Amino acid sequence: MAEQRGLVMINTGEGKGKSTAAFGLAMRAWGQGKRVLILQFIKSGGDWGELKALARLDGLEVRSLGKGFVLGGKDQAPHRQAARQAWEQVQQEALSGQWDLIVLDELCVAMKYEFITIEEAAELIQSRPASLHLLITGRYCPQELMDMADMVTEMRKIKHHYEAGIKSQAGVEY
Amino acid sequence: MAEQRGLVMINTGEGKGKSTAAFGLAMRAWGQGKRVLILQFIKSGGDWGELKALARLDGLEVRSLGKGFVLGGKDQAPHRQAARQAWEQVQQEALSGQWDLIVLDELCVAMKYEFITIEEAAELIQSRPASLHLLITGRYCPQELMDMADMVTEMRKIKHHYEAGIKSQAGVEY
Repeated sequence: MAEQRGLVMINTGEGKGKSTAAFGLAMRAWGQGKRVLILQFIKSGGDWGELKALARLDGLEVRSLGKGFVLGGKDQAPHRQAARQAWEQVQQEALSGQWDLIVLDELCVAMKYEFITIEEAAELIQSRPASLHLLITGRYCPQELMDMADMVTEMRKIKHHYEAGIKSQAGVEY
Repeated sequence: MAEQRGLVMINTGEGKGKSTAAFGLAMRAWGQGKRVLILQFIKSGGDWGELKALARLDGLEVRSLGKGFVLGGKDQAPHRQAARQAWEQVQQEALSGQWDLIVLDELCVAMKYEFITIEEAAELIQSRPASLHLLITGRYCPQELMDMADMVTEMRKIKHHYEAGIKSQAGVEY
């Protein structure tokens, strides 16, 4: 039977486009009158073009709750603390009934660092309102999370201009 | 030497997120003050959430120049004619110097049907202003076009909710 219901969608892989596709979907959902919240793990906001553009869409809310990308060897405590606080918000907002779509940007990275566990993500997915769409992004998505999802896209890097020595540019990378 | 210059980027593959990532990048570029044009092949406009949202971004222009998705066995002449007319616009706009980023949405599908040839695409890439970014989307990207690109992402379908009988939904698929 064909049906409509809240979906769990994942964009993962090493290629470009995981978060940008999530922002595109957020914009699409907003355009159809859906109530959209974007919660960013890891990312701390700042000079991102998409944040400036999304700010034009009244009612679409973005919260950048991270401390920047975690570097190996650095003290992870502030990153962990930020991720735990973000997770509190995720749980509250998912259960609030106020949203049709919640994007959990870079959640997979927060899971890679074990700031958030697979059990916690599973609990969220199972306890959420049936109509709520979740869109989860980030490299290193654990297999268990993919098993729970309705839709999984791997952004596979065929080639990337970084490898040819091209610097990141405003409007392309941020 | 690290450098910045106009890039040729491609989103292809069978997975979800090719066009939505392109819209996300268009939004990001617009947010950084770039002049952005989206030209859609195949797609004919209508009730798409992203079109409603992008209309809020003054100066970001979208033109849906297709006749809808081409079905096997149907008369292709109107689709071909629409694609040829769209291509005229692409050439004019690419050379105009008026844009920093042009998205050629579903161009790969128009190429699959041989409405646009690889030679034409190659000529466009080579003759464009050096600072102009092109972002090309669609399934079936020909290898020759990928060879010319700076960045290629394959959106690989790991799983899709259509396969579980879930219907397309406003805000998710359109």
